[in-house]
Amino acid sequence: MAYTLVLLRHGNSEWNQKNLFTGWVDVRLSEQGRAEAKRAGELLAESGLLPDVLHTSVLSRAIQTADIALDEADRLWIPVRRSWRLNERHYGALQGLDKAETQEKYGNEQFMLWRRSFDVPPPVLDDDSEWSQVGDPRYADLADSDLPRTECLKDVIARMLPYWQSDIIPDLETGKTVLVTAHGNSLRALVKHLEGIGDADIAELNIPTGIPLVYRLGDDFMPLAPGEYLDPEAAAAGAAAVAAQGDKK
Amino acid sequence: MAYTLVLLRHGNSEWNQKNLFTGWVDVRLSEQGRAEAKRAGELLAESGLLPDVLHTSVLSRAIQTADIALDEADRLWIPVRRSWRLNERHYGALQGLDKAETQEKYGNEQFMLWRRSFDVPPPVLDDDSEWSQVGDPRYADLADSDLPRTECLKDVIARMLPYWQSDIIPDLETGKTVLVTAHGNSLRALVKHLEGIGDADIAELNIPTGIPLVYRLGDDFMPLAPGEYLDPEAAAAGAAAVAAQGDKK
Repeated sequence: MAYTLVLLRHGNSEWNQKNLFTGWVDVRLSEQGRAEAKRAGELLAESGLLPDVLHTSVLSRAIQTADIALDEADRLWIPVRRSWRLNERHYGALQGLDKAETQEKYGNEQFMLWRRSFDVPPPVLDDDSEWSQVGDPRYADLADSDLPRTECLKDVIARMLPYWQSDIIPDLETGKTVLVTAHGNSLRALVKHLEGIGDADIAELNIPTGIPLVYRLGDDFMPLAPGEYLDPEAAAAGAAAVAAQGDKK
Repeated sequence: MAYTLVLLRHGNSEWNQKNLFTGWVDVRLSEQGRAEAKRAGELLAESGLLPDVLHTSVLSRAIQTADIALDEADRLWIPVRRSWRLNERHYGALQGLDKAETQEKYGNEQFMLWRRSFDVPPPVLDDDSEWSQVGDPRYADLADSDLPRTECLKDVIARMLPYWQSDIIPDLETGKTVLVTAHGNSLRALVKHLEGIGDADIAELNIPTGIPLVYRLGDDFMPLAPGEYLDPEAAAAGAAAVAAQGDKK
């Protein structure tokens, strides 16, 4: 039996447009991001790859992306599960800062280390920062020790993979087509696992926004073949754009 | 302990505007309906009555209403549960028909009986009608005997109340503020139960669209006081409009 998994990275947000580090700050999609989500829904409908169940992060930009895409594909009614474990990487003290100013202030080497290192997180975000998630009601049920103040990609993997095992695989197991609508780094964490990408090589992986990425999985819930984008040409252009602009959060 | 329940009837749909019987046909909100949903979200935000969990039908117009209202109230991230048991009344063979033409063809007495009778359903809808829900993937898990071909309000109560007991009450029990976003008749069925309205009197109950109706419930999950609309003036006007126009589906 082959299982079907569809990954979708949310599109352009209000803070992408302002060139600010976002992370766990809950910004909305921009008009461009809404158009990307609509296109993703069209691709799902055209391909006949219709999701039976949705998993999203608890961040509005991923939820909006799913809502718009599923509306377009006439699948608004499918069951929905949300988890903070699918959230974007927490960007620590960089959340809310201008990317260009940060690069100038700390130099390119430090800047790239924070953005692309596998295991070096940015400085921790103060709990009394206006960009802190301490006290955010959506995390009220989380143990304080689970609520990050900064994360590197390694940290994202450590909190994302348990959800893959406990919640996503059981849905796949029933034969459902599972849509995961999430973020650049939570999806990079999942693709790293699925494609067995090494810690040193994952920096090179760029997932384009708004283009569904489809995996057929075997009985071990690992891919039978590399993932395929529903619009490969747009995906290649999108990945190149992400690489050129850097790791947009 | 008092429990908090918020009911919200979806607003104007594309078929309201065309004056067609809708029932289980999955039409979208009109622009007016989207504006009503946004206003509902503003009312929730202004009142500080923020839902912790959402229950919706599996019909897009109720789901859209919830998504728009929760976006406005900054609660997109709350858990969502959907059930066909919260769907609008199935309107049988009237689904897809023009209301004015139907009234003319069958006469006002028959027309009002179909619309307002507690226990007389319209004629059954043929399974091969373009407005039938047989074969609709959202009902794939339903036993064929559970999939209605027509319903009166009594039938709606019979399939809605089990969900109230099995799924909504358990969420209330944990102290969560529960939002139920649904339809004229599934909400009338619930209000009939909550307010102990008799079979003969329920015809008089008109629930306005797009205005949150709040109940404080006691330990028996019955109201401590009558329900209150968050905008009583608009609710009174809305209920009068529904009564004047008849039972808009």
